[in-house]
Amino acid sequence: MAMAEEEVLLFSTWPSIYGRRVEMALKLKGIEYKYIEEDLTNKSPSLLKYNPVHKKIPVLVHNGKPVAESLVILEYIDETWKNHPILPKHPYERANTRFWAKFIDEKCLPAILKACWGEDQKEREKAAEELSKLLQFLENELKGKRFFGGETIGLLDIAANTIGYWLGVFEEAAGVSELLTREKFPRLFNWVNECCTCKCHQGKSTS
Amino acid sequence: MAMAEEEVLLFSTWPSIYGRRVEMALKLKGIEYKYIEEDLTNKSPSLLKYNPVHKKIPVLVHNGKPVAESLVILEYIDETWKNHPILPKHPYERANTRFWAKFIDEKCLPAILKACWGEDQKEREKAAEELSKLLQFLENELKGKRFFGGETIGLLDIAANTIGYWLGVFEEAAGVSELLTREKFPRLFNWVNECCTCKCHQGKSTS
Repeated sequence: MAMAEEEVLLFSTWPSIYGRRVEMALKLKGIEYKYIEEDLTNKSPSLLKYNPVHKKIPVLVHNGKPVAESLVILEYIDETWKNHPILPKHPYERANTRFWAKFIDEKCLPAILKACWGEDQKEREKAAEELSKLLQFLENELKGKRFFGGETIGLLDIAANTIGYWLGVFEEAAGVSELLTREKFPRLFNWVNECCTCKCHQGKSTS
Repeated sequence: MAMAEEEVLLFSTWPSIYGRRVEMALKLKGIEYKYIEEDLTNKSPSLLKYNPVHKKIPVLVHNGKPVAESLVILEYIDETWKNHPILPKHPYERANTRFWAKFIDEKCLPAILKACWGEDQKEREKAAEELSKLLQFLENELKGKRFFGGETIGLLDIAANTIGYWLGVFEEAAGVSELLTREKFPRLFNWVNECCTCKCHQGKSTS
């Protein structure tokens, strides 16, 4: 557990899906932290000092030591604060979690971007079709489970949260694609509802 | 330690830098495995079964269960066979290792590809310049250390091995770039020599 004298800072921006991941993990574990909103058009000297390689948010600074890259931060949080583990115990299940988190970042998120902001209708439809195939893998992963993490929310749920958000957007804007429907991905849509009511969306930051 | 009845298979191709990483880790830990050379122009039904998402090598199959993606496999190996740990113990050092491994895959390797096979001389020179800046970060990481992993070879050394190989190539083909010289990166060049004499390059596979 976080001790009283510990200092946890999170440099992020409110729209960042990657920053949101770190906030979810901190809140799930009940870690108090200070949130620092960055202006990406005018990055602070602190951000540039703490992440000189990528110069990007999110950065978690724990007792003066910075950790960058959202998935790396999630593993750091899980290894540092042991309550409410977000990675499974068994090496094989841990490998699966890491595999799918990487899949979300490297395959699904780029496809979502293209499906929403592709150059023309044709490119967007093609990306939505590709995304539909990718999401089918995640739909299968949820078979017989409440969360990707099983009965409780875990690292993969946190990583996939963005997809949940976008599925909602696609449903609202039904014109975008008929490929990403509640009928086609019943488990994913159900999972979105479960995630939205989870305690990790409640706050504990100070800013 | 691997027990006699355990079955470890590695699907790879001989030129694959990612497959080479897995072989290095298996050899470092003295794990016996069966190597299966894949023909990527005619992928085997086994590969497609074990990695239906990416349909790519390397895939490690441990007692029938497949693990894909080289960095994910390295962590799996380290968590399954505890001798000769390749990740540090402390969460902060582990986060650093993961951060730099990701940096190598997402920044350095694409820059190396462009520096070697960019469309024209101008693009190649620009990529070599970018690569030079990226390698400076790794050069700094080696300050006061024999290996990235400290006194023994670790996950980051294994991940960075490709860069070591390419540094050698750049040195041979001095025309490619004057930016990637032994004078500019003395620690990296020294590290390459240390890595080449390490026991993880000696074999234990059956095929």
